[in-house]
Amino acid sequence: MSTCPTAGYASTNTEAQNIDCVNDVMLAAFANYDSSNTNFWLMFGAILVFFMQCGFAMLEVGMVNVKNTKNILIKNVFDASLGALCWWFFGYAIALSAPKDTTNFSSFIGEQNFFMKDVDNTIKSTWLFQWAFAATAATIVSGAVAERVTFGCYIVYSIVLTSFIYPVVVHWGWNTYGWASAWRENDLLFGCGVTDFAGSGVVHLTGAVAALAGAATVGPRIGRFDEGIKLPQQSVVFQTLGTLILWMGWYGFNGASTLALGTSGGDLSNAAAHTMVTTTISAATCCLTTVALTALMSKDKVIDIGAANNGILAGLVSITAGCSSVELEGAFVIGIIGSLFYLAGVATLEYFKIDDVVGAVPVHGFCGVWGVIAPGFFTSSDQYASAYYSARAAKCAGVFYGGTGDMLAANIVFILAVIGWVGVLSTILFQLCKMTIGVRVSLEVEENGMDDSKHGGKVFSATPVPTQEV
Amino acid sequence: MSTCPTAGYASTNTEAQNIDCVNDVMLAAFANYDSSNTNFWLMFGAILVFFMQCGFAMLEVGMVNVKNTKNILIKNVFDASLGALCWWFFGYAIALSAPKDTTNFSSFIGEQNFFMKDVDNTIKSTWLFQWAFAATAATIVSGAVAERVTFGCYIVYSIVLTSFIYPVVVHWGWNTYGWASAWRENDLLFGCGVTDFAGSGVVHLTGAVAALAGAATVGPRIGRFDEGIKLPQQSVVFQTLGTLILWMGWYGFNGASTLALGTSGGDLSNAAAHTMVTTTISAATCCLTTVALTALMSKDKVIDIGAANNGILAGLVSITAGCSSVELEGAFVIGIIGSLFYLAGVATLEYFKIDDVVGAVPVHGFCGVWGVIAPGFFTSSDQYASAYYSARAAKCAGVFYGGTGDMLAANIVFILAVIGWVGVLSTILFQLCKMTIGVRVSLEVEENGMDDSKHGGKVFSATPVPTQEV
Amino acid sequence: MSTCPTAGYASTNTEAQNIDCVNDVMLAAFANYDSSNTNFWLMFGAILVFFMQCGFAMLEVGMVNVKNTKNILIKNVFDASLGALCWWFFGYAIALSAPKDTTNFSSFIGEQNFFMKDVDNTIKSTWLFQWAFAATAATIVSGAVAERVTFGCYIVYSIVLTSFIYPVVVHWGWNTYGWASAWRENDLLFGCGVTDFAGSGVVHLTGAVAALAGAATVGPRIGRFDEGIKLPQQSVVFQTLGTLILWMGWYGFNGASTLALGTSGGDLSNAAAHTMVTTTISAATCCLTTVALTALMSKDKVIDIGAANNGILAGLVSITAGCSSVELEGAFVIGIIGSLFYLAGVATLEYFKIDDVVGAVPVHGFCGVWGVIAPGFFTSSDQYASAYYSARAAKCAGVFYGGTGDMLAANIVFILAVIGWVGVLSTILFQLCKMTIGVRVSLEVEENGMDDSKHGGKVFSATPVPTQEV
Repeated sequence: MSTCPTAGYASTNTEAQNIDCVNDVMLAAFANYDSSNTNFWLMFGAILVFFMQCGFAMLEVGMVNVKNTKNILIKNVFDASLGALCWWFFGYAIALSAPKDTTNFSSFIGEQNFFMKDVDNTIKSTWLFQWAFAATAATIVSGAVAERVTFGCYIVYSIVLTSFIYPVVVHWGWNTYGWASAWRENDLLFGCGVTDFAGSGVVHLTGAVAALAGAATVGPRIGRFDEGIKLPQQSVVFQTLGTLILWMGWYGFNGASTLALGTSGGDLSNAAAHTMVTTTISAATCCLTTVALTALMSKDKVIDIGAANNGILAGLVSITAGCSSVELEGAFVIGIIGSLFYLAGVATLEYFKIDDVVGAVPVHGFCGVWGVIAPGFFTSSDQYASAYYSARAAKCAGVFYGGTGDMLAANIVFILAVIGWVGVLSTILFQLCKMTIGVRVSLEVEENGMDDSKHGGKVFSATPVPTQEV
Repeated sequence: MSTCPTAGYASTNTEAQNIDCVNDVMLAAFANYDSSNTNFWLMFGAILVFFMQCGFAMLEVGMVNVKNTKNILIKNVFDASLGALCWWFFGYAIALSAPKDTTNFSSFIGEQNFFMKDVDNTIKSTWLFQWAFAATAATIVSGAVAERVTFGCYIVYSIVLTSFIYPVVVHWGWNTYGWASAWRENDLLFGCGVTDFAGSGVVHLTGAVAALAGAATVGPRIGRFDEGIKLPQQSVVFQTLGTLILWMGWYGFNGASTLALGTSGGDLSNAAAHTMVTTTISAATCCLTTVALTALMSKDKVIDIGAANNGILAGLVSITAGCSSVELEGAFVIGIIGSLFYLAGVATLEYFKIDDVVGAVPVHGFCGVWGVIAPGFFTSSDQYASAYYSARAAKCAGVFYGGTGDMLAANIVFILAVIGWVGVLSTILFQLCKMTIGVRVSLEVEENGMDDSKHGGKVFSATPVPTQEV
Repeated sequence: MSTCPTAGYASTNTEAQNIDCVNDVMLAAFANYDSSNTNFWLMFGAILVFFMQCGFAMLEVGMVNVKNTKNILIKNVFDASLGALCWWFFGYAIALSAPKDTTNFSSFIGEQNFFMKDVDNTIKSTWLFQWAFAATAATIVSGAVAERVTFGCYIVYSIVLTSFIYPVVVHWGWNTYGWASAWRENDLLFGCGVTDFAGSGVVHLTGAVAALAGAATVGPRIGRFDEGIKLPQQSVVFQTLGTLILWMGWYGFNGASTLALGTSGGDLSNAAAHTMVTTTISAATCCLTTVALTALMSKDKVIDIGAANNGILAGLVSITAGCSSVELEGAFVIGIIGSLFYLAGVATLEYFKIDDVVGAVPVHGFCGVWGVIAPGFFTSSDQYASAYYSARAAKCAGVFYGGTGDMLAANIVFILAVIGWVGVLSTILFQLCKMTIGVRVSLEVEENGMDDSKHGGKVFSATPVPTQEV
């Protein structure tokens, strides 16, 4: 073989040698294409998911009072920045590396590659893609506790969430050694592992449980539950801009979660396109359903843009676990039911007087739970086979599609584990904040707004205000 | 061949068998790369075109009165959502499936795959890309009739446009069975079919004709044509943000309309890059020309940002049909003439006192017509050969580039057909609305703004308004 | 070989012929994949870099006084439009074509392909990618001289910068014939050429030196250096939106500067992913450092969103030259030191009373210099080998990583050359403006704002202003 020229073929070779050479050149080139395409796909996905940071920033700044503009913006900018360092130092290792004892096929956390030691450039696209996911989890919290949490507590929970709490959940759900992972080689939870393709549970539920712990600990904003008061939001335009950016970014979030294009024989690019279609349909039906139900429940049949925006996000979260494994009609129903979960979440928080400024808990939490449950019912064995493994596609299909219920069971166990793990740790975290550095700003600072006291002065508009006609 | 290992080669085979095996592995891998790359390319394009929804939303919310902020935002959000369901149920089938009688080589509508029945994941990326186009067509209308159309009528025309009127036009122009399509195998219209690469006619003219029917039926906003009155627009910043997002998205709209990268022997990726360059040049010249002409025609030599923004869009629409088949100097001239069409459109609407809030008819209609005419003059046979078929490149070139004029004739016929089809149906539609559910809100609602009466209250700014110096 | 069918194989051939055929089909297909993937990669990068125009527009409109809204928007829109024509006519030729005498291995400018003559579609993706870079360079200037430069002078410097000053620098640094280029075949500057991977020097320093010449010539805005006055900025939300869009676009700027995915044997896609990780880390550390230092230096420990935003940009500029060749810990330190350069830049301008509205000189100039210096210290030979040439990786590594210092020397020479070339020409240019068409608007126009006198009237908000509670 050492006689093969790079052209794969030489007239001085025997025929047998030439076949050999051609074959070698071909296989090497194929391996190269596969790795290049996988890298491109993951970078493409990572950039889209990173752009979701911009979406969250616009959404959140649009929903808060103008007096907290700088405060919420800087938190969103920090989520990505702090998140990058935390993910580099600890997060990647805990989430995606192997345990030290790789014969341990039910591992809790990864134990190698801290500070990205001993890794080469071939994993950099994976790092980038997963960093963008990690930043998303942290951002979810900042929306819920906006307008009154201390900056110090924000820094603490962001670091702990991105460095430890969230990566552990990733390890459980997605690592090839994780106890609940569907990507394990054997000994899968209920023989299926959790079907949480792009992270309704891993990412959204994790963020939302921490958000709930935070919102409950920090308490409602002044006046939030007073009779007849509706706290003002800065701009529905920014909120909608953010929502549409998030919808766009979600195509990377769900689609690129195939992690490859499948150029070496699979059809993962088809599966990726399928996830984008189910993602679209669920967002659409949940948006329309939420607007319709909100209008029916309102006194004046209000067509509410807030319901439309959060309906889109609720539909997106609801389909995130099942996006690759449910059929289009499944996505349709998942979106409709997602709307009910979202509205139930809003009502529940209202009932318990928990103030969640952007609706993070209903959107990412209630719909995160529903999202993980849904594939347990709606996964078809055809789609499961194309996105996961065909060998267990019949067994691990949803119960409405002839499955055994084992996958549903695995998914429910995973939901409970995530709620338990994140709920306990983040409650402890916020309580520790409360007892030490303080979890909530003073009454005076809150009333005056954070920008004035902490961020160099209020945002103001220098806009002249003429009458409507010029 | 059943003896071939996946590595493509085995020492136990005869040499002849091994050649066979290597060849088989190679061809299968190539087919796989082709399909993966095509999927990736279409998903890439679809996401960019979807982002245009965000661009339209920002453009339109920037151009309306602040009192109709929520109203215009919710319409833009609904365009994508409603559009997804309509495209799933009916649109895709009518537009892109075959007629039942596939020996009928001049079909009017597709008649298979309603509700996406009997299709597999291999067409999902096409569905996604084409859905994003369909949503664009509907969005064009909402800008023209903004600030006074009823929400009920909006819902009706969105559904009918996306489910039926627009898909039929797609079928005519792009389906391999469509009577005007350049992608038919034989019996092409004037031997060439219509050269409307990315849809100056199919998408933009369709949207604009419906917009014109709507704007004419619904009538001008109060005060719109009163002497000395210029209705206020909310924010030129949002308008410009929207325009720049649209410009970006247009690279997907025009570029990804090659529908493949041409990895199996063609050079479609070169053609795609060429479309992006012509798209850039036309946008640039039309922007500069429109600003210059507007300044020359104004009393105080005003450098107008509105002219710059709509000039960009006019240039983009003007090049959309010919983007792949004209040369760079063609794109340059097309952009300049596009500016004249745009300005003529503005003047025409002004003359007939038709109120089109965002200039949808001048941009998408007048420039849509020009866009479809332009390749009839400027298509070079070289570029035609790279984007269409070399066999008919000489005949179907533009008349300025040695062509016979047949393609120009086909394009003019197509323009007339689109105007006729969409004009008649959308006029009937809006008139039916007028006679039943009502096409226009009450005077009181219009004066007070839609947000207050229909969407839960006016948007307001909680911004304190200090003096200029702090 | 003429007997080969397109399937690569025919039973009527001899075995030797068939090997030949299979080999030919394979090599042709590989060449095709390589060119398709390269095109896709460059189009992907170009679109991201183009989107940075939107980022700059939002950043700049967010930072100026509301009375100059239309003025700054139209400049940003013109940068892309004018830039396209200039790049088409002159820029591409000067920057990227060969000199007429190709035996001249130290050329100053390209001398072929003016007006894109004699080029085919295979270079169109390169043109697009490089046009987007050129537009960036021009945009940097508009931010610095905002709110008082004349529109005529703006037009002149945009054209000259994009047509001549900037393309010459590109030729020097990146053309295979450029005297300082690392891509020359032999006779490299100090045996290494300049290591400026994505343009800390070529793009950012060039823009910033022109910006400095402009800001110094045009003088500070009225009141800018008056005691106790802080000029108002329109909206920190738009500024942050712009910054986050720029961060996203930078992944195309730095990542796609590999110019290929390396599917034919290299691992450029790994190198690209690596650049995106270093880019992330430097942005993150520079953001956090800048916020921390600003807080420490301020009276009230202000957590400043302006510092966060410009810190991100400073980190991005600082890593742009070394993004492909430094390790992660190098990126970390580069970001921290970038923050010091940025803050030193702010202090320097303040000291000399040079008014730079958006901080273009500190961000793109001071950090541009640091960016080009940094790889001279931090480049590892491993990463150099993966992004440049392994043959000279040991010699051309950074001095902290065992390098000889030759590359550092080349980089310093390049910095001086860029400062000299751009500084002299742009100073002459702005002085010529001053002596002829005028470089600064009248006092009256400046005080009243540009929009009112030049752009058809002030932007105003029609927003009703209720109290905080509704």
